[in-house]
Amino acid sequence: MAERLIVVGGDAAGMAAASQARRRRDPADLEIVAFERGHFTSYSACGIPYWISGVLPERDQLIARDPATFREKFDIDVRLRHEVTAIDLDRREVLVRDLAGGAEVRAGFDTLVYATGATPVRPGWASGGVAGVFGVQTLDDGMALLNWLEREPRPRRAVVVGGGYIGVEMAEALLQRGLSVDLLEQADQPMSTVDPDMAELVSDAMRKIGIGIRTGLTVTGLQERDGRIATVVTTEGPVPADVVVLGLGVRPNTALAEAAGLPLGPTGGVRTDRRMRVPGVPGVWAAGDCVETLHRVSGMPVHIPLGTHANKQGRVAGINIGGGYATFPGVIGTAVTKVCDLEVGRTGLRERDATEAGFEFITVMAESTSRAGYYPGARPMTVKLIAERPDGRLLGAQIVGWSEAAKRIDALAVALWNDMTVDEMTSLDLGYAPPFAPVWDPVLIAARKAVDTLTRSRR
Amino acid sequence: MAERLIVVGGDAAGMAAASQARRRRDPADLEIVAFERGHFTSYSACGIPYWISGVLPERDQLIARDPATFREKFDIDVRLRHEVTAIDLDRREVLVRDLAGGAEVRAGFDTLVYATGATPVRPGWASGGVAGVFGVQTLDDGMALLNWLEREPRPRRAVVVGGGYIGVEMAEALLQRGLSVDLLEQADQPMSTVDPDMAELVSDAMRKIGIGIRTGLTVTGLQERDGRIATVVTTEGPVPADVVVLGLGVRPNTALAEAAGLPLGPTGGVRTDRRMRVPGVPGVWAAGDCVETLHRVSGMPVHIPLGTHANKQGRVAGINIGGGYATFPGVIGTAVTKVCDLEVGRTGLRERDATEAGFEFITVMAESTSRAGYYPGARPMTVKLIAERPDGRLLGAQIVGWSEAAKRIDALAVALWNDMTVDEMTSLDLGYAPPFAPVWDPVLIAARKAVDTLTRSRR
Repeated sequence: MAERLIVVGGDAAGMAAASQARRRRDPADLEIVAFERGHFTSYSACGIPYWISGVLPERDQLIARDPATFREKFDIDVRLRHEVTAIDLDRREVLVRDLAGGAEVRAGFDTLVYATGATPVRPGWASGGVAGVFGVQTLDDGMALLNWLEREPRPRRAVVVGGGYIGVEMAEALLQRGLSVDLLEQADQPMSTVDPDMAELVSDAMRKIGIGIRTGLTVTGLQERDGRIATVVTTEGPVPADVVVLGLGVRPNTALAEAAGLPLGPTGGVRTDRRMRVPGVPGVWAAGDCVETLHRVSGMPVHIPLGTHANKQGRVAGINIGGGYATFPGVIGTAVTKVCDLEVGRTGLRERDATEAGFEFITVMAESTSRAGYYPGARPMTVKLIAERPDGRLLGAQIVGWSEAAKRIDALAVALWNDMTVDEMTSLDLGYAPPFAPVWDPVLIAARKAVDTLTRSRR
Repeated sequence: MAERLIVVGGDAAGMAAASQARRRRDPADLEIVAFERGHFTSYSACGIPYWISGVLPERDQLIARDPATFREKFDIDVRLRHEVTAIDLDRREVLVRDLAGGAEVRAGFDTLVYATGATPVRPGWASGGVAGVFGVQTLDDGMALLNWLEREPRPRRAVVVGGGYIGVEMAEALLQRGLSVDLLEQADQPMSTVDPDMAELVSDAMRKIGIGIRTGLTVTGLQERDGRIATVVTTEGPVPADVVVLGLGVRPNTALAEAAGLPLGPTGGVRTDRRMRVPGVPGVWAAGDCVETLHRVSGMPVHIPLGTHANKQGRVAGINIGGGYATFPGVIGTAVTKVCDLEVGRTGLRERDATEAGFEFITVMAESTSRAGYYPGARPMTVKLIAERPDGRLLGAQIVGWSEAAKRIDALAVALWNDMTVDEMTSLDLGYAPPFAPVWDPVLIAARKAVDTLTRSRR
């Protein structure tokens, strides 16, 4: 009889695990059942802002693979609208509720992949169910928001609460739809994934395109009028709103894991080993936005929910379940985004992370251009590097620029991954031709500046 | 009394060395004199095709720094139109001819930087001085070509001989100026810096925009009519031409070095150590297109004339001459270019280099897109990887794609630089957001495919 693999959560991590396991073990050897409580499998949540903005006309463009594909091409039994409500490790079975029919059944497993993703953070004031207040974590969220935006009376004033990636991207999306937009941020600046000096460049650009940025305030409540959102109440006064989008971050979705006794780490995510096994719980694996992972620079556990990690972790779990060998060696916090034409990239530690992790370091900010200065379309770019003292090991890097900027972070990310020093980096053989870079690439200019600063700091 | 540094050749390498030495030693300690036989210092030869095409309206946009700047800001005495005709190592002096006045003088040195650049390859048929035949190595070359293109009767039919970077870029430039263009190439395909399977993608694109590509033929002569070029004679018949551009590559300019007894390596370039000292010749340094350097993957000496290396090598020489410490650890052959919207990037070894160097390897070609497949502007991209068997160390990478493709080679270049295996590369934390990459970046997709191929090859 075939063994059975049950996957709890049918999005990126879960379905990557299922697919990889299937590639290595055929249905006679391994039955695979995936339970997903939502309406969709394997979709790109990161694409939601671009669907809302109208850049992507169709919701279904965001769906990478539907259940029929998994069933027909991979012999993976995906059950949508089926919520796992309990995991019984002793009996090795899950309790599953059919959200459409209501029936609850038990299903036994030999192997389990826990891939429940993340849950949006919802402060008290956000949980009252006020009409016109939306998260943007799922396709269902996106559809509800779009319906609201297209319904009469049409919302004109949008408030985005939270200035992380999703908040910034949603602010731009709503602006592109013709709404006026205020972005509210508790800290001194939005885009706190980069240092304040770099975030300021982003704030300036956002203000210039017409996004109102209000920082240093806390939302304390919502006020309705005629059964719809009317005002966001903050510590700095009321902000009128016809629609509110919440971008307050997410936390690992671990309710089931906790109840079942799976080990959680200090970030609140499920713990795993390098092969994505849950330590001490044989046959149980976890992957994606519900787990915590190692930050390779700080050496600390972190929770960084991102589709690219979820896919990699799911793949690693699936290869191992399939009898192969693969490991997930952790992350370095690389991320890219854009606000209109302004591109932002970051990797590794910010100044405050580096301080917290106990490093001594220098920082430099280097101005240069995306292409040879004389080549048409050359745009300014700022590269910031953080390097350990005294030896100059790269600890973090951030880029803000007007074009061809964000993905330059990849070269820095690979340098960081390999523990390169800024001195070693000055020799890197990067691509050069006038349409693509100055003869000293912005990355190399920054490395040279860091070497100079380190040299002075050693005297 | 101050020591004297003489720089032979006032372009990228020489002036980078001079500037870096000056930063560390003031004029009272080190006098710096640079002799340049041409009319310009520190210009971007790589930018010439874009000036010819009209993308850059002004020649002087290509000049990074003029002699006045060097004199006033750096106290470096640059003498244009001064050709060093001999180097006397015993007397430690150079013989210099003033090309304008004709006088020849001797100048003593304590330290010498040999930075004479490269000389274009000129087969016998190209050395007859036929009107309408041009190289494009110097600004003077470029001006002569531009004058010819703008003179009556206006040339309509251009022939570019040689399908390397400069040939391909010049073919596009002449096409953009409205000429019909034939590119003649001795090998089976132009763009032999990438493997034939990747070069074919480039040829196809060039043909589509209207460049005639004729391969597998050798030019044997030129025919004039009315004192101007009329026909390029080849082993496959005559090709009519009103203007001929030579892109036949360059070799290290070592005539002076040879005469002086500086050691040359197997590639014909001047030998240097890691600090850019000429071994066995105290006080003499060399940098730029006239030297050979270490290829870090093959372990062999190579001659790769490129502004980015020249600048780095000059900087290293200058830091050391200035009393600092820096090394140039070699190259890995990274290069990028574009033909209209088609971008090409390469790093490391091609298949034939890898075979020659004695490696066993697998290759993969992976198709993907520049952005998330659903995101507007996503364009196809092909990434080829060459990885050592059985362990999977990356040996080389090539990218061809329609946008946002070429500079992705940098992440691969840094991985190669650090001896990463394709298996390690699958875990790399590269930037992901829908406007910038699919959730698996093209680089990672290629790495995964290489891992699969290696796994199969090990069975």
